[in-house]
Amino acid sequence: MSAPDSDIAALAAELPDGTVITDPAVIEGYRRDAANDPHPGLPRAVVRPGSTEDVQTVLRWANAHRVAVVPRGAGSGLSGGATAVDGGIVLSTERMRQIRIDTANRTAVVQPGVLNSEVKRAAAEHGLWYPPDPASVEISSIGGNAATNAGGLCCVKYGVTSDYVLGMQVVLADGTAVRLGGPRLKDVAGLPLTKLFVGSEGILGVITELTLRLIPVQPPASTVVALFGSVQDAADAVVSITAKVRPAMLELMDHASINAVEDYSRMGLDRSAQALLLIQSDAPGAAAEEIAHVIEACEKAGATEVFATDDPEEGAGFTAARRLVGLALAQLGTLLLEDVTVPIPVLPELVAGINRIADDCDVLICVVAHAGDGNTHPVVVFDATDPDMSDRARRAFARVMELAIALGGTITGEHGVGRLKRDWLPLQLGDDVMALTRRIKDDLDPHGILNPGAVLS
Amino acid sequence: MSAPDSDIAALAAELPDGTVITDPAVIEGYRRDAANDPHPGLPRAVVRPGSTEDVQTVLRWANAHRVAVVPRGAGSGLSGGATAVDGGIVLSTERMRQIRIDTANRTAVVQPGVLNSEVKRAAAEHGLWYPPDPASVEISSIGGNAATNAGGLCCVKYGVTSDYVLGMQVVLADGTAVRLGGPRLKDVAGLPLTKLFVGSEGILGVITELTLRLIPVQPPASTVVALFGSVQDAADAVVSITAKVRPAMLELMDHASINAVEDYSRMGLDRSAQALLLIQSDAPGAAAEEIAHVIEACEKAGATEVFATDDPEEGAGFTAARRLVGLALAQLGTLLLEDVTVPIPVLPELVAGINRIADDCDVLICVVAHAGDGNTHPVVVFDATDPDMSDRARRAFARVMELAIALGGTITGEHGVGRLKRDWLPLQLGDDVMALTRRIKDDLDPHGILNPGAVLS
Repeated sequence: MSAPDSDIAALAAELPDGTVITDPAVIEGYRRDAANDPHPGLPRAVVRPGSTEDVQTVLRWANAHRVAVVPRGAGSGLSGGATAVDGGIVLSTERMRQIRIDTANRTAVVQPGVLNSEVKRAAAEHGLWYPPDPASVEISSIGGNAATNAGGLCCVKYGVTSDYVLGMQVVLADGTAVRLGGPRLKDVAGLPLTKLFVGSEGILGVITELTLRLIPVQPPASTVVALFGSVQDAADAVVSITAKVRPAMLELMDHASINAVEDYSRMGLDRSAQALLLIQSDAPGAAAEEIAHVIEACEKAGATEVFATDDPEEGAGFTAARRLVGLALAQLGTLLLEDVTVPIPVLPELVAGINRIADDCDVLICVVAHAGDGNTHPVVVFDATDPDMSDRARRAFARVMELAIALGGTITGEHGVGRLKRDWLPLQLGDDVMALTRRIKDDLDPHGILNPGAVLS
Repeated sequence: MSAPDSDIAALAAELPDGTVITDPAVIEGYRRDAANDPHPGLPRAVVRPGSTEDVQTVLRWANAHRVAVVPRGAGSGLSGGATAVDGGIVLSTERMRQIRIDTANRTAVVQPGVLNSEVKRAAAEHGLWYPPDPASVEISSIGGNAATNAGGLCCVKYGVTSDYVLGMQVVLADGTAVRLGGPRLKDVAGLPLTKLFVGSEGILGVITELTLRLIPVQPPASTVVALFGSVQDAADAVVSITAKVRPAMLELMDHASINAVEDYSRMGLDRSAQALLLIQSDAPGAAAEEIAHVIEACEKAGATEVFATDDPEEGAGFTAARRLVGLALAQLGTLLLEDVTVPIPVLPELVAGINRIADDCDVLICVVAHAGDGNTHPVVVFDATDPDMSDRARRAFARVMELAIALGGTITGEHGVGRLKRDWLPLQLGDDVMALTRRIKDDLDPHGILNPGAVLS
């Protein structure tokens, strides 16, 4: 699909000055998202609409001329959902940055280009909280969060992006703008279309406004750090903790991650530990009770060391170790970041299988996990200048997905399928679900202009 | 649409004995759900499959012969979603009653014919909780709950059915059975199709199995009852309460409801009160703190009387008043039960408007509400033997929906559109969203066999 330059000029003429950019130097910066696809497409133009009407103009034009449109938030996506395609356009929502907090309704009405952290800060000014907290909270757009149904660390108690989207305005492939849902905490009028678009990765429409549910700010959390001699012991503790309490955070680091962090920062972590759990409770007034249960569960599961603190500062110090993993690993080489989720009981089997894959493929794979959700981020570390090792790393990446599927898991818990994991989706979903997906896609986007190559091939 | 008797016999031959029932006396009991449509269709047969395979057989047959299929759970629906259609079949899931609790995953895998309360009880045996609690909890099926995305009293803190459905097996119009989602707390692989089917009211497929998320049992709740001289004062209290805490229940009864309950049961409620709020907190260990905030919010909003108790038994006594409303009103006449939801700040405007409509139409309208959600149940009380009054009642019912839409609300917060509210759906959604809905419906059910007349005309 492509359109002659004259048509791009016609589109530019329909839009405010500066909306359509064809400068190759600028375009270059919009070809990849954080998945860093080594072979991104070369788009014809970058289009930066300022309003829903602009987006309608763009899609009407693209639909008429059969031009591929890759919607893009802040470009922080990890699955290549915003990798540019040849001859298409990149539709960046970066200039759509309005934000309005409605305290009586406890909602935020935001345009897609606002960052997640900006939503959080605006809500906090009114004593309110927007919970979803992907690691990219400071750099990812709320539109991208909605398009991928982003998760994070607090999901284990507070849920994912979809749980907070009450309504949206979305522009369909033919340029029609529709309003779905609204500032209502319960609404079952008609099909649940709002939910269909959250996590649709830009293949069904372009979100131009979101109405988000906010909740009251939670009190500061208490923190437990526990070390284990095996991943199985840590997983046992996870099952036992979550059977009784709803922790606000329940993260796991494996042996390789602990050591990578220790190499990077000398935090004094026990290098012999096979697993570390980081648990927080923010139950107002009952954190002490919950923490007591967490400690007991960890000890019963055979923790070799358990440390607890009520001091939020000290707790933040511990979470720093968890948040350092990405940086620590980036020191060791190029990273392929996985996002497989399995049922919690098979977490140890997953980690054991990953270790076998790492051995087989002769690469390092570190595992950090939102363990309370069963959502793991195995990270394949390799030397990108070594073609053989790069090949082995990609093989390991694929085998981890295949293992997760075999264990009843999913290839992606929160990052999305994008282009990076597209080829494994049929293995997980099967032919019938793929056919159903394709029917809905074709029905809503008959000319296939919306993010072609993402999710579906 | 209809099929000759010989075809029904052919279907019966394909299914286990007793699955297909054509006895008119039995059929009569399956023509209406709890919306009590006075003009239900006369179906050709009632089919009670025992397995997903049976459902596939039924839908393959119905699709081939263009026979309308009305899926039916326990028949407790309030919007006519299971009203039978002429010449069609009623597909009752009442014999699909398996239930399995997985404690390690904290999930319940259930067939659609299991009652909501049976899921709750099975979970409770393992210290787990399935939160959604429609008033019909003892009589409604979990399949029907999923088909309507049922709500309830605890939604204000714990969310609706959709928030607890992790996966399902669903049979499509052509008889294809697909598995969507699964026992994974986070899963963004492919389009969010699980969410599309929750609340689809049987027009896209027939759910034959659900994987439900369970959470740990919550501690007993503390309770506050507050009386107000105006609905506005009560609504102010609602806004102020929910700005700081997340109550586990936040119910409102208006003047007419208070008096109907008092007529029925002599509980000693103040008959002069214009509004009553019933609030519960179950925050583990922090109920006292939350309750203190609730009391302060009620007093600041001008409550004329506030009573609080930590005693779960005493709290249950108060909730009895709320739960009595239905019975109390049924003593007064025939009921038309509304389910409109508005943004919380306009609750007083809604109640004032409803009072005007009641005056205009010369009928009694009582209002009870899940106030924390803005989800109200105005109940039009009338004498069904009086044709003129019946007509005025139906007009009042319609005008309440139109008022809710005008106030930015929805015609249904938790009961569904069914056949009862179908004609008002376009007014709320608008032409473009209706067209989008129709496209998805036609795409998934090209011959229109699934619950024709529900949601869409």
